[in-house]
Amino acid sequence: METVAIVGVGLIGGSFALALREAGFGGRILGVSSERTIAEALRHRVIDEGLTLDRACEQADLIYLAGPIHSILDTIPQLDEYAREGALVTDAGSTKQKIAAAGAKLRRAQFLGGHPMAGKETRGVQAAEARLFAGRPYLLTPSRPSDMETPAALDFLAWIRKIGAVPRVLSPDEHDRIVAHSSHLPQLLSTALSGTLGKHPDSEQIAAAAGPGLVDSTRLALSGWDIWRDILETNRPSILEALDTFIAEAQALRARYVTSELEADFADGKEFALRLRNSR
Amino acid sequence: METVAIVGVGLIGGSFALALREAGFGGRILGVSSERTIAEALRHRVIDEGLTLDRACEQADLIYLAGPIHSILDTIPQLDEYAREGALVTDAGSTKQKIAAAGAKLRRAQFLGGHPMAGKETRGVQAAEARLFAGRPYLLTPSRPSDMETPAALDFLAWIRKIGAVPRVLSPDEHDRIVAHSSHLPQLLSTALSGTLGKHPDSEQIAAAAGPGLVDSTRLALSGWDIWRDILETNRPSILEALDTFIAEAQALRARYVTSELEADFADGKEFALRLRNSR
Repeated sequence: METVAIVGVGLIGGSFALALREAGFGGRILGVSSERTIAEALRHRVIDEGLTLDRACEQADLIYLAGPIHSILDTIPQLDEYAREGALVTDAGSTKQKIAAAGAKLRRAQFLGGHPMAGKETRGVQAAEARLFAGRPYLLTPSRPSDMETPAALDFLAWIRKIGAVPRVLSPDEHDRIVAHSSHLPQLLSTALSGTLGKHPDSEQIAAAAGPGLVDSTRLALSGWDIWRDILETNRPSILEALDTFIAEAQALRARYVTSELEADFADGKEFALRLRNSR
Repeated sequence: METVAIVGVGLIGGSFALALREAGFGGRILGVSSERTIAEALRHRVIDEGLTLDRACEQADLIYLAGPIHSILDTIPQLDEYAREGALVTDAGSTKQKIAAAGAKLRRAQFLGGHPMAGKETRGVQAAEARLFAGRPYLLTPSRPSDMETPAALDFLAWIRKIGAVPRVLSPDEHDRIVAHSSHLPQLLSTALSGTLGKHPDSEQIAAAAGPGLVDSTRLALSGWDIWRDILETNRPSILEALDTFIAEAQALRARYVTSELEADFADGKEFALRLRNSR
């Protein structure tokens, strides 16, 4: 892999570029973004050159789509016209089934979806960090297992390891079910909690009495709707299922609280919270 | 205030002692705890001397009860026998109505309940930090407004400010309603979320795919049952009300997700999340 095109040079695309550099990538990194973002990315030495989509793709061995989901879905169908034979197209979108379906139609380039489980509240290339993916899961979602075996896919996998991320392979529909629970459900709960408290008649006193727990619990509620509109639109059945499971569990916990103690609930919650920290 | 007795030298009691020292308190700090904790507290120079409850209280101008709620409730009735005339008794328990009712029976000493909104997952005196309360709300819960006007109360308030905390005055029942929402509800949601995911058939994959959002959302689920048993037992009506309000909101959000967009939910959630960060 000698030339990489980052399409959408924001927090994730910019961090991937910086991570490649830090991991010893010696090739060229091209950026496709708005004029303003390209200027910013050049100023921060995140990319080597800003180009249009067609000019960047005709040179790239790896095309890394890091914009919002709707823009990934818009871009993929154009790539067969521009991409080099054997190039790898990947993306960093938060849902995978619709993107994988679009990617499966590519003929000249190979598509392999991905989803780095990293991020922060601050957006944009100026927030990009070379270590954003370090120690974090990097989900790869081949439509067929053989998609992982091509030279381009193996090379990409090696770079994911070199940037310190922990690759995990899932099918696109497994991915969407899993992240509905691991990511989309926590987001909606944080949004619902923050909204509930904001509407409460005592919301000012609640805000004034906030400890570190409430600050953590409302961090996800800071996330932008522009990102979440696409996620909610493209993973509705799995997210509804996750919400239903959670609401039923919250109701059952409430019922147990009325009639008895919640010791077992605390033990179960702690067990999983420790397990996910140990599985990292 | 020349002599302070910390009863229960754990994370909160130990941090209060260290914070006093850092803020320039030149008097003596006595500790009442198990032999092992006293040894640890002396080794870390958190206290000057370990004593029994009676010996410590007969010297103290401020008696700071920092154990679990049930131990605070057990200790308060003994204090009239030991405390000096005019001493101030305060506590750091997470619920206030039952503790305030016990405190109101004191005759020789004055009672003024408190609740520093600070903490972390790690417990014990070895985790104590002088800066634990800095920038955090410190709730004070006088049973009558005049409880704030005594010389001992004014002196204590001045020290709360000196350690960098932000004092806020609430009645004990206001306190319990407010923290049911700001602290107890987030705790139960984190426990319920973590428990839901732990019981899910794909829980291993969910844990392996966890990003920073899920880590934050399950941090409170690490909390110990020994602390929470007392809180849940002493604030049941307000916590049930908070849970009901949240569950209704989650169901309403689910219904809106089926029929339309959640843009307004995201805007409302973000608004409160920003508000509580700005009110700090």
